[in-house]
Amino acid sequence: MREAGGDVRAHRRADTRAAIVRAGTALLTERSFADVGIEDVLAQSGVARGSFYHFFPSKEAFGEAVIDNYAAYFDRKLQRLLGDPSVSPLARLEAYVDETSRGVEKFDCMRGCLIGALSQELGAHSAVFRSRLEAVFANWQRHVADCLRDAVAARELSRSLDADGAAEFFWYGWEGALMRMKLERSAEPMRRFGRHFIDSLPRPSRVRGAVRESSRS
Amino acid sequence: MREAGGDVRAHRRADTRAAIVRAGTALLTERSFADVGIEDVLAQSGVARGSFYHFFPSKEAFGEAVIDNYAAYFDRKLQRLLGDPSVSPLARLEAYVDETSRGVEKFDCMRGCLIGALSQELGAHSAVFRSRLEAVFANWQRHVADCLRDAVAARELSRSLDADGAAEFFWYGWEGALMRMKLERSAEPMRRFGRHFIDSLPRPSRVRGAVRESSRS
Repeated sequence: MREAGGDVRAHRRADTRAAIVRAGTALLTERSFADVGIEDVLAQSGVARGSFYHFFPSKEAFGEAVIDNYAAYFDRKLQRLLGDPSVSPLARLEAYVDETSRGVEKFDCMRGCLIGALSQELGAHSAVFRSRLEAVFANWQRHVADCLRDAVAARELSRSLDADGAAEFFWYGWEGALMRMKLERSAEPMRRFGRHFIDSLPRPSRVRGAVRESSRS
Repeated sequence: MREAGGDVRAHRRADTRAAIVRAGTALLTERSFADVGIEDVLAQSGVARGSFYHFFPSKEAFGEAVIDNYAAYFDRKLQRLLGDPSVSPLARLEAYVDETSRGVEKFDCMRGCLIGALSQELGAHSAVFRSRLEAVFANWQRHVADCLRDAVAARELSRSLDADGAAEFFWYGWEGALMRMKLERSAEPMRRFGRHFIDSLPRPSRVRGAVRESSRS
């Protein structure tokens, strides 16, 4: 009985913390860190002030938890879509662009990328946030680079491809496109960027393969 | 005498307004709109509160003036660098990347793009800011597209190039690279993006020109 009661309490505690983090994610993908107050988080999550401070001693600690939760969610999403062996590597990348574009449309193109927004707002100032945000981007780039290497192995892309460089380039453009999505209140910038990026990757040429590969080395 | 006195007063008024806008530009390229208070602007510019409200009835009106000033500055800069007929079109684009990268280094990579930062923060919310910010990006894209068309005319790039599409792609990636510049406190993301973008543009092929041009249509 005591153990079961402990489980229930632990479960409730986890629920409360998750509700705070969920509310924070919704608020911080729409508005700036400076603009979102603890009051807003309490109102959105229905959690009492005391509970908030029980889990998060400061707004910064809360921000870090929201980053970690968002990063874990996207790590799973990238793994699921870009690591799916039943789909060709380039089609996986298309699926990521497509699913994310439809995802932002569910929120009327009001919510952008939390990591991009916090980088823009706090990147230059907060050393703690900065190292966390850099690590998230490094992980996201690794997922895309691995998918691009799979595309080379599957002969969808040329051996000449610099997969790490292209993955870095993808995230610069993708974050820029997400910013424009909010500005234009349309996912079209994301779709246009995704199409342009995928089209711009070097294809292997069967006819003049040897010449083209060596000319790029 | 009266006219001269009027000139002096008008000059002082213009100076005061310019000082407020200059301070606002410095503050808003480093920190968010929500985080920068009128007090910060007064402290940075040395202007009295009454003078501020004389020129700007609200913080939004002040924000619009800062956007307009920044947009006019970059319009001149883009015109000077990308429209310079004494330099080859692709070298102009390289010069823009290089000058802007050195520019952010002067401020220890703390100050990013005002237009990108405000788009990220307020794009989804403020209708007034949104239309202004969209117009700025449209103008910047036009400058780059014109430069790319010059590069096609000068046979630096292939006739197959979609100059408008590539210019749009440039600004997505450039804004993403500027965001990462603040995060990494280094202009290297901007330089790497610039190099990658320019390298990825389709060159005319003298040997197989006709084949390559038609294969992309």
